[in-house]
Amino acid sequence: MPMILAANANAQGSHVGEWRHPDAWERPACNLGNAVRLARIAEAGKFDLLFLADGNGVRNLDKLDLFAATSPSDRPGVFEPVTLLSALAMVTEHIGLVATTTTTYDEPFAVARRFASLDHLSKGRAGWNLVTTSNPGDALNFSHEAHVPRDERYERAAEFAQVVKGLWDSWADDAFPQDKASGRFLDPSRAHALNHQGRHFQVAGPLNAPRPPQGHPVIFSAGQSEIGKELSAATADCVFAIEGTIDNARRLYADLKSRLPRYGRTADSLKVLSGVTIFVGETAAEADALFQELEDLVSPAVGLDYLSKMVGARMADYPLDGQMPAFAEEHVGPTGIGRAIIAMAVAEKLTVRQTYKRILPQMAGNLFKGSAMQVADVMEEWFTTQACDGFMIAAPVVPTGLERFIHLVVPELQRRGLFRLDYEGRTLRENLGLARPENRFSPSVAE
Amino acid sequence: MPMILAANANAQGSHVGEWRHPDAWERPACNLGNAVRLARIAEAGKFDLLFLADGNGVRNLDKLDLFAATSPSDRPGVFEPVTLLSALAMVTEHIGLVATTTTTYDEPFAVARRFASLDHLSKGRAGWNLVTTSNPGDALNFSHEAHVPRDERYERAAEFAQVVKGLWDSWADDAFPQDKASGRFLDPSRAHALNHQGRHFQVAGPLNAPRPPQGHPVIFSAGQSEIGKELSAATADCVFAIEGTIDNARRLYADLKSRLPRYGRTADSLKVLSGVTIFVGETAAEADALFQELEDLVSPAVGLDYLSKMVGARMADYPLDGQMPAFAEEHVGPTGIGRAIIAMAVAEKLTVRQTYKRILPQMAGNLFKGSAMQVADVMEEWFTTQACDGFMIAAPVVPTGLERFIHLVVPELQRRGLFRLDYEGRTLRENLGLARPENRFSPSVAE
Repeated sequence: MPMILAANANAQGSHVGEWRHPDAWERPACNLGNAVRLARIAEAGKFDLLFLADGNGVRNLDKLDLFAATSPSDRPGVFEPVTLLSALAMVTEHIGLVATTTTTYDEPFAVARRFASLDHLSKGRAGWNLVTTSNPGDALNFSHEAHVPRDERYERAAEFAQVVKGLWDSWADDAFPQDKASGRFLDPSRAHALNHQGRHFQVAGPLNAPRPPQGHPVIFSAGQSEIGKELSAATADCVFAIEGTIDNARRLYADLKSRLPRYGRTADSLKVLSGVTIFVGETAAEADALFQELEDLVSPAVGLDYLSKMVGARMADYPLDGQMPAFAEEHVGPTGIGRAIIAMAVAEKLTVRQTYKRILPQMAGNLFKGSAMQVADVMEEWFTTQACDGFMIAAPVVPTGLERFIHLVVPELQRRGLFRLDYEGRTLRENLGLARPENRFSPSVAE
Repeated sequence: MPMILAANANAQGSHVGEWRHPDAWERPACNLGNAVRLARIAEAGKFDLLFLADGNGVRNLDKLDLFAATSPSDRPGVFEPVTLLSALAMVTEHIGLVATTTTTYDEPFAVARRFASLDHLSKGRAGWNLVTTSNPGDALNFSHEAHVPRDERYERAAEFAQVVKGLWDSWADDAFPQDKASGRFLDPSRAHALNHQGRHFQVAGPLNAPRPPQGHPVIFSAGQSEIGKELSAATADCVFAIEGTIDNARRLYADLKSRLPRYGRTADSLKVLSGVTIFVGETAAEADALFQELEDLVSPAVGLDYLSKMVGARMADYPLDGQMPAFAEEHVGPTGIGRAIIAMAVAEKLTVRQTYKRILPQMAGNLFKGSAMQVADVMEEWFTTQACDGFMIAAPVVPTGLERFIHLVVPELQRRGLFRLDYEGRTLRENLGLARPENRFSPSVAE
């Protein structure tokens, strides 16, 4: 299998400062032209898929003045992902289209329908990134008084995904003969009501759409907690992971793959994609220069705000050039990221300013920075030593960063035999090396 | 104002027999190529909009054998409307894109987002057909034990629409300066949280999308009951109506317009579109011939089933060529359509077979049949005598029926000065002659 490459399809980019860079597109909020150009660039680079992160709310409402500059990460002005990818299906032919949708504030019948429809529209290129919504504020947009507790979100998500998959199997692949002569539009014996009765959902089915071209659109998930890893092992085809070191990434990779047999799955049925931010230049110095340019576009207020979110403290209350405080463990969030940041800052005696500058470029994952050879070397090492099956790539600045990656690094990966010269399959699932799921109701499974 | 023309965008057609006709497209279930061709045909004909009806379930599961032939009306294999119209936004430039979404099984934040996104994708051509879902079975796909009662559905719908409109006003039109030099992506003083606290919904906002190009995407509704008419008067920009006679249509038109002042609205702020099925030929005989061809493609079983649904009785229990029974009023459904059918059959002494043959072509509305002159005459009479502001047109067979209408009738309407020669406006709202709503939070409204 070739290395999997996924492109961040947010045309506003992922680095908080990048929209201000001279190379960045003008007026990026809900800009369709940019999205189309980005999709075509990624497809020309033979990327497996475009990926759209998402949330259902505007964060930081209590500090809009600060937030005024931070849009790329907090996304106040974005397309809804499934609508955008439906549009992009019409201007692309090969690249996968992966949209984020929450299981916490949506209905399985509706989600099954939208992704089945996207799969039909794109002729088998749809993917669903299943999230349970981490931002507590989103609850207030869906008539909830407070965020749904984590365990309940994950339990609901697991059942939600099972219902969605069951609905995708509502019809056999040959259920719609559409035969004019006999007047037989569909074959009733090939329809399957789901009649799901669970703790969170009761869904009769069948879905009012033919089975998707891929059988099931490809399911993505993330989350590195125990409950998140278990959901991925039970449910997902691809999992996004961010680990700061190759050793940790290898451990996580082995951990995720080891969970699969319990669900009757083989190791190659779950692909692990590592989130990376790539700065590449003709030379390492050129990559460093761009990195520095972006750093200078982030004001201390924005940097402090980002660091505050990561470590769970009001960092504006501390001297900008004083040493980063060694906060106690109860101070920081549940993700472990905050703890890792503080440990790093203390060990390296970083100031507050140095700390946010260090972490800002890694908002979208690990930092891979250098010449094309250097970047290809580290990608090869991660890929060939089972730290990942591929990468979810943010390459500031959009679009020049991605163009530079495709121009400089992709040919080197191809030369080394690590990445495709052209698309192998007709569907996203085929390009990812994932089998087309049997229909749970088809005779070969049921008998 | 020119006459408004809306095209049924279901490329499977609306007449239950038409998919079997030799002129009908092959393999219509979820066929993107057909949808694209249909959209381009309608746009070449200067239609105001494409309209996609929708439901969230497969009907008639208890009689799939029969249902096997009836797909166009029961829609077991269709695209989800918002995804399809997002795709069609990329292959059209002028025509409006109106998708049906229910308020009973969705969330206002999600609906506001999807239609805002479609409006941005299409540069101001989105419309939302608000329905409360009439099919009881759909409830079973959304973890409900039974259909939500009618009054509660409409009450929820009214509040739902208010929340959606409020969310579309989350940002002033100039809220996103996106100024690279100053680092000011957005202007915090131009953001408005909604903080809606109602009986059915509590929604904080703001929406995570800029204000739609149209301010508010155009809202469509239907329903001719008292509660339905009141919802339209309070909420809609356009209303679909089906009345069997021009006199009844005029009464309904006057009734709907008379309700507007109570909501501070002028008569031209609500457009009434009459549902019609048009059979047109070079001659009246040609139209009759097509009509007969389609009739012959409907089996008695399918015809009886359709009639059964309309009058609320198992019509297979009655002799096919015996006289239509004069069912008592408590026998038929709440819509009045069943009563009208029985009254007509009794008055004209129709057999059961004659009755279903009479009503089948009118599934999508009144039947206008004849030569181009005859069809243009009746359309002119309806339009100029305040029976409607335009028409929602089904023209069997897709696509030839629509092409024939555009080739034969549209030029005659244009010659008479009743219909546009080219699109006047840039947005759907402009083409419909509807004002762009002020932002409820903008100074000009609030002060």
